[in-house]
Amino acid sequence: MPLKPALLLAALALPLPAIAQPAPAEVAKLRDAALKDEIAWDITEGLTTEIGPRLAGTADEARARRWAVAKLKALGFSNVRVEPYQMPVWVRGEEKGAIVGSFAQPLDLTALGNSGATPAAGIEAEVVYFPTLADLEAAPAASLAGKIAFVSHAMHAAQDGSSYGPFGQVRRIGPAIAARKGAAAILIRSIGTDYHRNPHTGVTTFPQGTAPIPAAALSVPDAEQLERVLDRGKPVRVKLLLTPRQIGMRESGNVIAEVPGRDAKAGVVLVGGHLDSWDLGTGAIDDASGVAITAAAAKRIMAAGRPRRTIRVVWFGAEEVGGFGGEAYAKAHAGERHALAAESDFGADRIWKFDTALPATAAPVADRLATALAPLGITRGNALAGDGTDIGPVLATGVAAVDLSQDGTRYFDYHHTPDDTLDKIDRAQLQQNVAAWTAMLAIVANAPEEIGSVERPQRDH
Amino acid sequence: MPLKPALLLAALALPLPAIAQPAPAEVAKLRDAALKDEIAWDITEGLTTEIGPRLAGTADEARARRWAVAKLKALGFSNVRVEPYQMPVWVRGEEKGAIVGSFAQPLDLTALGNSGATPAAGIEAEVVYFPTLADLEAAPAASLAGKIAFVSHAMHAAQDGSSYGPFGQVRRIGPAIAARKGAAAILIRSIGTDYHRNPHTGVTTFPQGTAPIPAAALSVPDAEQLERVLDRGKPVRVKLLLTPRQIGMRESGNVIAEVPGRDAKAGVVLVGGHLDSWDLGTGAIDDASGVAITAAAAKRIMAAGRPRRTIRVVWFGAEEVGGFGGEAYAKAHAGERHALAAESDFGADRIWKFDTALPATAAPVADRLATALAPLGITRGNALAGDGTDIGPVLATGVAAVDLSQDGTRYFDYHHTPDDTLDKIDRAQLQQNVAAWTAMLAIVANAPEEIGSVERPQRDH
Repeated sequence: MPLKPALLLAALALPLPAIAQPAPAEVAKLRDAALKDEIAWDITEGLTTEIGPRLAGTADEARARRWAVAKLKALGFSNVRVEPYQMPVWVRGEEKGAIVGSFAQPLDLTALGNSGATPAAGIEAEVVYFPTLADLEAAPAASLAGKIAFVSHAMHAAQDGSSYGPFGQVRRIGPAIAARKGAAAILIRSIGTDYHRNPHTGVTTFPQGTAPIPAAALSVPDAEQLERVLDRGKPVRVKLLLTPRQIGMRESGNVIAEVPGRDAKAGVVLVGGHLDSWDLGTGAIDDASGVAITAAAAKRIMAAGRPRRTIRVVWFGAEEVGGFGGEAYAKAHAGERHALAAESDFGADRIWKFDTALPATAAPVADRLATALAPLGITRGNALAGDGTDIGPVLATGVAAVDLSQDGTRYFDYHHTPDDTLDKIDRAQLQQNVAAWTAMLAIVANAPEEIGSVERPQRDH
Repeated sequence: MPLKPALLLAALALPLPAIAQPAPAEVAKLRDAALKDEIAWDITEGLTTEIGPRLAGTADEARARRWAVAKLKALGFSNVRVEPYQMPVWVRGEEKGAIVGSFAQPLDLTALGNSGATPAAGIEAEVVYFPTLADLEAAPAASLAGKIAFVSHAMHAAQDGSSYGPFGQVRRIGPAIAARKGAAAILIRSIGTDYHRNPHTGVTTFPQGTAPIPAAALSVPDAEQLERVLDRGKPVRVKLLLTPRQIGMRESGNVIAEVPGRDAKAGVVLVGGHLDSWDLGTGAIDDASGVAITAAAAKRIMAAGRPRRTIRVVWFGAEEVGGFGGEAYAKAHAGERHALAAESDFGADRIWKFDTALPATAAPVADRLATALAPLGITRGNALAGDGTDIGPVLATGVAAVDLSQDGTRYFDYHHTPDDTLDKIDRAQLQQNVAAWTAMLAIVANAPEEIGSVERPQRDH
């Protein structure tokens, strides 16, 4: 039975009635059963095996949507559907690089999303080295005319993934800066923490008025090799062939499935990850596991009985290339009340911390989460929750949030590389994720408290 | 002063005079100084950086020989020279693979050395799966007509590298077996122990009368992906494009350098590794580190004073593609007396064991080795020494041997892949190798005992 808001407000000052929320023992039972979950593995294995790479806006992503609809229907979700939208699509072409001259040797590299193309015969130019993005920024205007800029950095692994923020800027804005200084092309050290010959792609942005230049990431071993060759102190020339293309507007879409709630007025609990992946790997950690974890947890709540709030699972499209799915979702559902949103998009390694962004009226929810998650080794953080490119536009409207933070120590070893494949998923850690999400959903979707909006500082999504 | 053989034989029954061998304290001093060696790193870094990949018989290998001659002369070795020979050369072309049909996706693969080529448009055929080489062998004659054989295996890492023997057969003879059964092509699971999208190349052999077919290794993640797709139970078709070529006879060569000894009659101590590498990586563990370790140790002995026996350092050519350098060396030096041979060709991780093959008259040498190597954590094995493709033809004539066995636990993670790069070298372990080789050479090159020939069973090199 849904609690009436008036009754709820009255109840806040009193011990909550048993009917209002699942007993801690019930949450614990759901949580512990989820430690043997097979649903998330089944989804991750199926999506990565039967679809493989699924670049946004391509036929592969469309095939993934059909697969997703069939899978979510088979799992018994309600209102399974695709919400389509249009988006600009960039596709990879040939890619080759080599040092020429006395230290001639090939370089392993890959184009960044939105990279410009070289002529079909490639280009050859001298390399100008910048140890950091700040060094590139400090280069005089036009000083790179006809040159290939090469920008390195000192990214190292961090459990919370925080190094991706600052070091990722080399990829996000480095190419546009080099273009404005006249560079013929730019090479960056992959935004990654591994030592394998697998370069890390990812999107870069050329603002209106800045013509795209060829932009590629060297694998970390290749970047260090190029640095060593430059250390010899003689001019170094590189030959580069990149033939990606912008192919115009194409259809993409969000796949949506629901666990209907008992109380339509209590607001929707929005969870999910993204269905698209980069084209180099099969997108196991980024983000088959995220769609799998959130759907598996929602399925487990569904199987336990109708929750108070509707749980909406969204497998967003086109996250990698600019968050088009998240924007489209927020626009399409602008009139709807969301109680809370949470996203899983950081691999499948164990959750070690949670944070919340809740209105004061719902503060007890965080305490109940702390109690339920502690046995999984999850500690309570002191940050304001609000992670996630896909749910970012919804959160920006003041919706409450929970972040379940995964261990990201090895995430940037594989992120956006050919190496993002199923074998990188640790099944026991995947199950710990499902257990945490199941406990979180059991508490949040059934919270008797009103979950209204929260104030949050402007975030840069 | 060199000991005269007659005097030496007389001395064998008596306590050895101090002049006959370096005192254990002197060996220990040389050994421990080598733990700070920088020569081996300098060679490994230089060869992998300034030359990079150096496939046998190509201009890159010729460039490596010129680099090697300059380096060995700069280190002060005597009689630095190239001994050339002719050999057949195979070069890689384009390589692409993809599953077609309902689970369409690219496959990461690389051609095996001596692979045949597909037509320029590629081939497309149904895959027939064999879990092991024995299963392929059991397939009825002609049963693979027009099909692509796919052979897997269960190779796992072993500290002594012993899994390479049996599982490597999938690569060495699998393609010829598939060809004889009519296969249009063969794919194998990489002979490797890692989970990265870096396929392992390596040579295969099509005997006279068996026409080469296209033969490629899938990276381990791709092989497991193909197995999962096949597990879905429907016919699976693969598209394959491989355009390698045999380009005929070309020049290769062995680079030779010496530390002249005092006693020409005592026989040469032959040490070395191979200068060529596969074309995918920069050949850091295979085998820049081997040529570096052996040369660094010889240089340290040279710096300590003239040894009794000449130490000959050989950086063999064309090991990877069939041991042409080792064969050419044995032929060119057939008339010469070798006292002992030892090879380093298993990466740069720490030495954990040594074995010997010594005549009874030189048995005390092994005891002295045990004493000198124990402080490095190196234990005495009970096998008959005789490892090494390059020194194999010399050993086959009855020459004594020492094996310094490296930890190979991670060797087959990188072996023959693009990932064989400088960053895989652990400097401290590289130094431990140099220390062990230095101690070994101090003892062996100065041993007062006669080191005559040994009986050994026929080995399959």
